[in-house]
Amino acid sequence: MSDKPLRIGIAGLGTVGVGVVRIVRKHAKLLEDRAGRKIEIAAVSARSRDKDRGVDISHYDWEDDPVAMARRDDVDVLVELMGGSDGPAKAAVEAAIAAGKHVVTANKALLAHHGQALALAAEKSGSVLRFEAAVAGGIPVIKALTEGLAGNEITRVMGVMNGTCNYILTRMEATHQGYNALFEEAHKLGYLEADPQLDVGGIDAGHKLSLLSSIAFGTQVDFDAVELEGIEQIELQDIEEAAEMGYRIKLLGVAQMTGRGLEQRMSPCLVPAASPLGQLEGGTNMVVIEGDAIGQVVLRGPGAGEGPTASAVMGDVIDLARGLSIPTFGIPAAKLTAARPAKAVVPAPYYIRMELDDKPGAMAKVAAVLGEAGISIDRMRQHGHHSPTAPVIFVTHKCARNQIDTALEGIGKTKVVSGAPVAIRIEEV
Amino acid sequence: MSDKPLRIGIAGLGTVGVGVVRIVRKHAKLLEDRAGRKIEIAAVSARSRDKDRGVDISHYDWEDDPVAMARRDDVDVLVELMGGSDGPAKAAVEAAIAAGKHVVTANKALLAHHGQALALAAEKSGSVLRFEAAVAGGIPVIKALTEGLAGNEITRVMGVMNGTCNYILTRMEATHQGYNALFEEAHKLGYLEADPQLDVGGIDAGHKLSLLSSIAFGTQVDFDAVELEGIEQIELQDIEEAAEMGYRIKLLGVAQMTGRGLEQRMSPCLVPAASPLGQLEGGTNMVVIEGDAIGQVVLRGPGAGEGPTASAVMGDVIDLARGLSIPTFGIPAAKLTAARPAKAVVPAPYYIRMELDDKPGAMAKVAAVLGEAGISIDRMRQHGHHSPTAPVIFVTHKCARNQIDTALEGIGKTKVVSGAPVAIRIEEV
Repeated sequence: MSDKPLRIGIAGLGTVGVGVVRIVRKHAKLLEDRAGRKIEIAAVSARSRDKDRGVDISHYDWEDDPVAMARRDDVDVLVELMGGSDGPAKAAVEAAIAAGKHVVTANKALLAHHGQALALAAEKSGSVLRFEAAVAGGIPVIKALTEGLAGNEITRVMGVMNGTCNYILTRMEATHQGYNALFEEAHKLGYLEADPQLDVGGIDAGHKLSLLSSIAFGTQVDFDAVELEGIEQIELQDIEEAAEMGYRIKLLGVAQMTGRGLEQRMSPCLVPAASPLGQLEGGTNMVVIEGDAIGQVVLRGPGAGEGPTASAVMGDVIDLARGLSIPTFGIPAAKLTAARPAKAVVPAPYYIRMELDDKPGAMAKVAAVLGEAGISIDRMRQHGHHSPTAPVIFVTHKCARNQIDTALEGIGKTKVVSGAPVAIRIEEV
Repeated sequence: MSDKPLRIGIAGLGTVGVGVVRIVRKHAKLLEDRAGRKIEIAAVSARSRDKDRGVDISHYDWEDDPVAMARRDDVDVLVELMGGSDGPAKAAVEAAIAAGKHVVTANKALLAHHGQALALAAEKSGSVLRFEAAVAGGIPVIKALTEGLAGNEITRVMGVMNGTCNYILTRMEATHQGYNALFEEAHKLGYLEADPQLDVGGIDAGHKLSLLSSIAFGTQVDFDAVELEGIEQIELQDIEEAAEMGYRIKLLGVAQMTGRGLEQRMSPCLVPAASPLGQLEGGTNMVVIEGDAIGQVVLRGPGAGEGPTASAVMGDVIDLARGLSIPTFGIPAAKLTAARPAKAVVPAPYYIRMELDDKPGAMAKVAAVLGEAGISIDRMRQHGHHSPTAPVIFVTHKCARNQIDTALEGIGKTKVVSGAPVAIRIEEV
């Protein structure tokens, strides 16, 4: 414990930055008791000094340049809340590390792209780089994985880690509206990133998964190896068919070490409606961690927002005030191995939907293609209809993804379906 | 980081102790990478040296006396897994602390009764006392509360923290058998403590709740103030009536700071069946933490067993190897305030069941008693019956527990009911 206060410099005064200022002001005494020393804001930096943010920042030194702030003698910890994988966020974090200062960041993109280099630099300079707020908002999942469950060989990490996607999917089910209507609703509510592809394309959640993978499996962050699939192609019909069969559709991240290498994927999946993941509503996040000793632990909480994200930032700041020193990804960066990406994901049952022509022999052609691809069918359903095509759903037994791809291609060539058939993995959770 | 190994001495080689030995042997390299130094077992102690435990302990020094082991020069950390609030467990922990050694324990009874004295002693001698395994098995909840959520003022902590009780209650519902049959089943499966009252009387779970309370509210552990009620009086009928109304019955712990003082209770409650707590099956544990910034976080995982509990122990051991130093209950023991127990629990709706005589005027008498106690009725149901008495269920609007007690006493005096009426709190979760 130190008698000196821990002085932080906050770069970025958006929602989360304001949340951090609020906590430091409101809970000064509580934080001092818990951290063993005072936590003070030495300086702040943001794009506009004069914007009304609802908190008084006049007591803190202002810096126009976050890099200059990161280098200040009176800043012990840079709290980086600007976002963006490059540009000022990266420059400020690098400057802080070069100056031997600790860094707390909520920036998943930065770490997904530059995590290994930053971790190496931090460990070389004696800095500690923490990023609890970058993954699953307020849920203390980085801590659970890096510390609480450190006695386990981790076997699988799964998660619903983009609240906006989960909001859209659960609202589609609740309101019986299609994807486009709910995308618009999410946009109006301010739930979407400036580039919505970060959300609905699974990129944001993929960033988070790549960070969890690194800790779980002792591998260098390898975001490029995350198999990404967004939620844009999910139709209301898929959600309703899934529900009738006892499933819900989630944008699910899965990372697991297999005999064929590290599998990382972020894609829509059918999960049992009665499972914790299946029951997840709205913007809530959930991370499931499986280890050889623990079995399974499930963590659930708010995935975004001022309070939850600021709570995660403050958890890291308090750790630093208490003197915690852990390598960024749980083991020294030099010991992280290059991840060998699995060439194929582990087999699973799949849900397949297609619009089949209502013509004699159409079904036989599709069934033949599935059979040729070595896919056996667990369940099939075709609804009554009044159109020249009928929606047909197949649920397969376990098969490889390349068998599914072969079948989808073959089904396209039969010319008895309208539009592209859709395949969604069914995940055992 | 230190080049020296961290050497542990394990006192108690039951299920959990064996689990710890297994992890240290199986994951030596992984633990070294994560902890930054080797973790070694220097010595072990248990009642019988020769018992076959399925692991080879011949490499470790043996001590008949755990106190002697705690004092060994080559033991840095005492891992206390003997259990019991007093006797050898307390003596060994005190000896370790007096010798300036760190302690990791899974012993909730010890801490519930002597936590404050041990925390003071540990902080005086420079020892760190950790107890993740004492609460909710493998779930890293102590870490979440003490560290990850340390930026929050905690407003409420709730939990289902006795797997045996939850097993009995969920099996009653699933098998339509009464309490006694499932108690026997749990006994045969070895799920019950030697003194079953520790489980079904809510004592074990109450111990855990008192530890969470202390961290959450910065108060001295005050187990004696936990309002305890066991599950023995729960009948199958209560479970089935609750289910019909959309509730499930859980042995639920709730700790919250109210204007009237600290409320701590461990008692059967009706919780919404669709809530995370309501969905909890079998021996799984769940802890819900609510804070001013985070909102709500839910942690779910195995509450007992070799692997999960050993996982929690190893999390603490790795923390110590990494140099983590945090006061036992999150803030220095001398700063923990004496908890001022709330004299009355916050009002809630209640479920009331009674066997009402099938006689004219009987219902009027009961309704009059409820009205006189100031209790208004939200729902009432009486089933068709072929006996001289009829089961009648009331669900009240929010009222104080003393109003319920007054009403139960008054109903008894009407002489129109058979047996004692039962009241179960309905908790908003």
